[in-house]
Amino acid sequence: MIVPTHRVHNFNAGPAVLPLEALERARNEWFDFAGTGMSVMEMSHRSKEFLALHAEAQRLLRELMEIPESHHILFLQGGASLQFDMVPRNLLGEGAGADYIVTGSWAEKALEEGKRHGAAREIWAARESNFDHVPQPGDALSIDPAARYVHLTSNNTIHGTQWKHFPDTGDVPLVADMSSDILSRPVDVSRFGLIYAGAQKNLGPSGLTVVIIREDVLQSCAKNLGPMLAYRNHVKNDSLYNTPPTFAIYMLRNVLQWVKDLGGLPSITARNERKAELLYEVIDAFPELYRGHARVDSRSTMNVTWTMSDEALEKRFLAAAQDRDLIGLKGHRSVGGFRASVYNAMPLMGVRALVDHMRSFAERNA
Amino acid sequence: MIVPTHRVHNFNAGPAVLPLEALERARNEWFDFAGTGMSVMEMSHRSKEFLALHAEAQRLLRELMEIPESHHILFLQGGASLQFDMVPRNLLGEGAGADYIVTGSWAEKALEEGKRHGAAREIWAARESNFDHVPQPGDALSIDPAARYVHLTSNNTIHGTQWKHFPDTGDVPLVADMSSDILSRPVDVSRFGLIYAGAQKNLGPSGLTVVIIREDVLQSCAKNLGPMLAYRNHVKNDSLYNTPPTFAIYMLRNVLQWVKDLGGLPSITARNERKAELLYEVIDAFPELYRGHARVDSRSTMNVTWTMSDEALEKRFLAAAQDRDLIGLKGHRSVGGFRASVYNAMPLMGVRALVDHMRSFAERNA
Repeated sequence: MIVPTHRVHNFNAGPAVLPLEALERARNEWFDFAGTGMSVMEMSHRSKEFLALHAEAQRLLRELMEIPESHHILFLQGGASLQFDMVPRNLLGEGAGADYIVTGSWAEKALEEGKRHGAAREIWAARESNFDHVPQPGDALSIDPAARYVHLTSNNTIHGTQWKHFPDTGDVPLVADMSSDILSRPVDVSRFGLIYAGAQKNLGPSGLTVVIIREDVLQSCAKNLGPMLAYRNHVKNDSLYNTPPTFAIYMLRNVLQWVKDLGGLPSITARNERKAELLYEVIDAFPELYRGHARVDSRSTMNVTWTMSDEALEKRFLAAAQDRDLIGLKGHRSVGGFRASVYNAMPLMGVRALVDHMRSFAERNA
Repeated sequence: MIVPTHRVHNFNAGPAVLPLEALERARNEWFDFAGTGMSVMEMSHRSKEFLALHAEAQRLLRELMEIPESHHILFLQGGASLQFDMVPRNLLGEGAGADYIVTGSWAEKALEEGKRHGAAREIWAARESNFDHVPQPGDALSIDPAARYVHLTSNNTIHGTQWKHFPDTGDVPLVADMSSDILSRPVDVSRFGLIYAGAQKNLGPSGLTVVIIREDVLQSCAKNLGPMLAYRNHVKNDSLYNTPPTFAIYMLRNVLQWVKDLGGLPSITARNERKAELLYEVIDAFPELYRGHARVDSRSTMNVTWTMSDEALEKRFLAAAQDRDLIGLKGHRSVGGFRASVYNAMPLMGVRALVDHMRSFAERNA
């Protein structure tokens, strides 16, 4: 394995760190993919080599996430933002209702697009506490049994919260934006009518969106939509209605193979839990200095958010972090402070470097 | 420069051959973009390094194509297929009309989406001769002066035809799908209200769409569209409303820099003309064997199409071509025979290898 001479600890929220092994494989195959004498970017999406790659990426994702045969896997473009539109455009229909659980800014944007297409309704929101928690088991959610779907965001990048137990929505299909925690832990996919995720956190580069849609939900989709906005059309054409983002799909394949080689979701989950634990431990060890933004029951394993009491201190913390090659830690302006994004590809070593910094900074400023 | 050990002559129609220099630069910067200690895929699209790259790609495109300040440059997703939808969605409006010049299959698809949004009308089509030509100066086009726009496809990948002189549409904005010949020759951009192009022929990898829109056309766009489908929103946010396909934009930058280093459009044009000339010469030299599909006045410099009288011969030609590492020559099923796509990045050397093959095959089968 080539070890790059200068590689920082990359805590970016997305686009984010990628597994070194996935990057390296791409670099090795750069001029000659699968013995074709060309780069994977230079070949037809209808060639047998690309079709095999496309199928391999689907198969690996199905295997790793244990996606049942009832669910189709799509590779689309436009990110979660286009899914905010496509979900209600396909599933809602005029006069019909959908229930949105609003756990942060991205959920708010999804709701807004829902309202553009039908009677989308906010049924929960923790705005008063700046989205510091998500609903817990036992919390009443007042889901309309006639709703076409219930929408939630499984992990909230900005606020650093994450669902640990998904709600029981009865016969109403559950739709989830899993952009920032897909493939980070086991999820019972059969319970979801539709899952979507921008690739740029846990799956690969930006410019690729994964959609997982259950057959009965597909059957309920609106007809007569334009081909690019219709799930029906993309399923019918196995995501090859038009030229897909071939290189991003290639990188997805490399990332999925890396997850598999590591031992699949059980290993990834254990690794992610350990990483998050180390960070929350140091936050909790210095409560006078570090204030975790997320409520303990809602703490995310993907995005760890905290603030400090003093802005001057925050500036010093960030500058000292940069000196240690700890990059991308500035929190989103709506929370302030810090955010360490520790997606699948963030190695334990990077988290340890950050924890060391947090501990020594705290001890110096006790 | 690293010369790959095995690189074929890649005549794929798209995704297609990329400049070796652009690929090599990417490989050299693979683990460390701009001294950041990470790959360009791993960094925030809001980082100063990415913003500089994004601006550089826009600036290079503006410089090379001489795009006036009246026109905005957008980097979007979804390919030309999504533009087939976005153009009428933004520009047409219910009850309004638009005129489509149908020079091939892609133009037909564009028209179909036009009809979904308003009174789109086919004003020209050469279906009876299997789209072997495009309108010529002097041909009557009966453009409705009240039309919101006139749509054309500047180069027809499947049929191998290309506009040499764009029509005068008076005050009606001209909209062009330039997916397969953008940046291949000088074009007076000021004459166009909107230009769009999927990147995967002359600009870079698939998954990126370039849109060039004139300010007055932008002002006439529909309001209250969802953000992802509204040109207004993308212009307002300088294509950064949501996470863009960062790696594809990076590759676009590398390709544009290569064009500039080569001497810009004058050099590229001369090179493309020479390449096409060589191919049409050999087709014309053996009229008993090779039949050019496109009418002489409409011949494309990007996609050269021809058939043979005999299917068995065609099979032998293709097999012998493959033996010489001449790849991607099979014609589209609606034309049959062969298609040599010779986009900007196809070196003269590759064309010479194909011409040699055509000549020796013809001589052996005279």
